[in-house]
Amino acid sequence: MNSETIHTLAVLVENRPGVLARISGLLSRRAFNIESIAAGPTEEPDVTRITLVVRGNEDTLGQVTSQLGKLVDVIKIADMTSGNCVHRELALIKVAAPEERRRSIIDIVEIFRAKIVDVHKEALVIEMSGEETKIDALLDILKDYGIIELARTGRITLGRGPVPAKAST
Amino acid sequence: MNSETIHTLAVLVENRPGVLARISGLLSRRAFNIESIAAGPTEEPDVTRITLVVRGNEDTLGQVTSQLGKLVDVIKIADMTSGNCVHRELALIKVAAPEERRRSIIDIVEIFRAKIVDVHKEALVIEMSGEETKIDALLDILKDYGIIELARTGRITLGRGPVPAKAST
Repeated sequence: MNSETIHTLAVLVENRPGVLARISGLLSRRAFNIESIAAGPTEEPDVTRITLVVRGNEDTLGQVTSQLGKLVDVIKIADMTSGNCVHRELALIKVAAPEERRRSIIDIVEIFRAKIVDVHKEALVIEMSGEETKIDALLDILKDYGIIELARTGRITLGRGPVPAKAST
Repeated sequence: MNSETIHTLAVLVENRPGVLARISGLLSRRAFNIESIAAGPTEEPDVTRITLVVRGNEDTLGQVTSQLGKLVDVIKIADMTSGNCVHRELALIKVAAPEERRRSIIDIVEIFRAKIVDVHKEALVIEMSGEETKIDALLDILKDYGIIELARTGRITLGRGPVPAKAST
């Protein structure tokens, strides 16, 4: 077996300088590519939660997770790939919208329950949150209008049910 | 002058292994702390957009930005701090919600135009997108109910108006 798989890891870290460099350096040395990363504060001061979507060798994933868990500043790692989890992502999309096409774009935005957050006579900025597949579906429709600029957060994830995610190491 | 400031940088990179390690390593060596990071795909295949919120010395920011711009794989950097920009963030919040307090939490969620994305007899998972200050305000109210787990994406940002952000280097 030497197959590549995609895994979602939730990593709790002490928010100290260099922690992201150590994590991304380790993944890079083990030939794990980072498909997306999202990191922000948590309910604990000084603790950051990093959600990584990584692609790499299935066989070495366990080793890599274990090595990540041993890094100074890493408090906990949970593999959120196969569990019963809620995944969400946010996108800001700037789409070309001259007056004659604006109504048509607004209709699409309403169908997707997205929001228009900026209007210009030649462009709209749309905010859309949801599962990646829904954002991909919206982008697929909007690309015919001309996507000028796009920012996506990468996936964040929480387990369903009443308790925090269990550590996988 | 030796004051620390917070800056938002949008960095377009070629999606190759190690690019995030190089960027985060450079910031760490220059004593820039990463407050949040969000990275995801763009409208161009193989191009990733990374939004960094960094805190560091005002005087060295120009140097750091210039060095980032010289890294292999970095296509463009734009400073989105002071411009006319739309900032958004996404949060998933798991809050303790026994039956007798559930209605009260649902009311708060509706006021904030957030969404409930998972229900358990003892907990709810709430999805909220918006400016960081709105997410902070929601969290401030929910903390009295008991926040079990929290994942935030970090900020993404697009300039207002019809054109892509200008490179700052």
